[in-house]
Amino acid sequence: MLATKMIETPDIAAERSAAYRNAMARLAAAVTIVTTDGVGGKAGFAATAVTSVSDNPPTLLVCLNRGSSAFPAVKANGVVTVNVLSNDHQNLSRLFGGKTPVDERFAGADWEKTETGAWRLPDALASFDCRITSIADGATHDVLFCEVIETVVRPDGEALVYFDRDYRVV
Amino acid sequence: MLATKMIETPDIAAERSAAYRNAMARLAAAVTIVTTDGVGGKAGFAATAVTSVSDNPPTLLVCLNRGSSAFPAVKANGVVTVNVLSNDHQNLSRLFGGKTPVDERFAGADWEKTETGAWRLPDALASFDCRITSIADGATHDVLFCEVIETVVRPDGEALVYFDRDYRVV
Repeated sequence: MLATKMIETPDIAAERSAAYRNAMARLAAAVTIVTTDGVGGKAGFAATAVTSVSDNPPTLLVCLNRGSSAFPAVKANGVVTVNVLSNDHQNLSRLFGGKTPVDERFAGADWEKTETGAWRLPDALASFDCRITSIADGATHDVLFCEVIETVVRPDGEALVYFDRDYRVV
Repeated sequence: MLATKMIETPDIAAERSAAYRNAMARLAAAVTIVTTDGVGGKAGFAATAVTSVSDNPPTLLVCLNRGSSAFPAVKANGVVTVNVLSNDHQNLSRLFGGKTPVDERFAGADWEKTETGAWRLPDALASFDCRITSIADGATHDVLFCEVIETVVRPDGEALVYFDRDYRVV
């Protein structure tokens, strides 16, 4: 049983969106930096909408706003590396979450080239080097299904988490 | 540019899955209980694979193992309520994460019926009452795209987070 879309006025829609964002602020999420490189150029963005999908084959998903500056590069390259941030990476997260030009973002840390050609943060808690295998429509966002071809884990270090519109440490 | 599937032996696949799970243990995630009810019956499960997709229209996604006990009910009902857990809900999370029969799971707390007919945990940090609008294939899992029709927020309370295969508080 699948629902049909609701019809509503712009005011009600805006109110519903605001209520939704307030509720989502109560869902804690790990902070990551997602990078890409290739024919579409180098890009990277901070993301909390990253989730494990399956361990066979290893698959995760990333939700990416179609209006974001990194979107064209990610789509053209078809590859991403997801880097899970530690508490030491708060400034880096801010750099990749704002309007900073690409080169300045990446200048905030040293990076290693991954097998897919994207960029790994060497001291990330974990990194997932991925090929995008399919894309689902998520209204304003594309949901990228990513097959993980290589993982690197750092066994120590505290996690950087976003909760109540602020950084927290776990 | 989309990737084709890799061909590999079972041993290599098992190793790759294990490495993936170890890396995913380093991605902190909020703990939720997802409930459903309707023609397919009452069901509920603990989930960390819940992510915001869009605020317009308010949309989230839930990854659900097709082998899970709750799967047939969720598919038949087409509705879910996502309840974000606080630190007070560790025992409830364990109850909904194991092999406990449905009635015993729900006996662990008081629940309110939502507009869709699923079940809200009144002291959840946030709850999202949803209709499933589409489903994407995530290998072993279905990825449920859910339009949020009602949110309830509890402004206080600490978040229950899963990290390094253990509960943490944020």
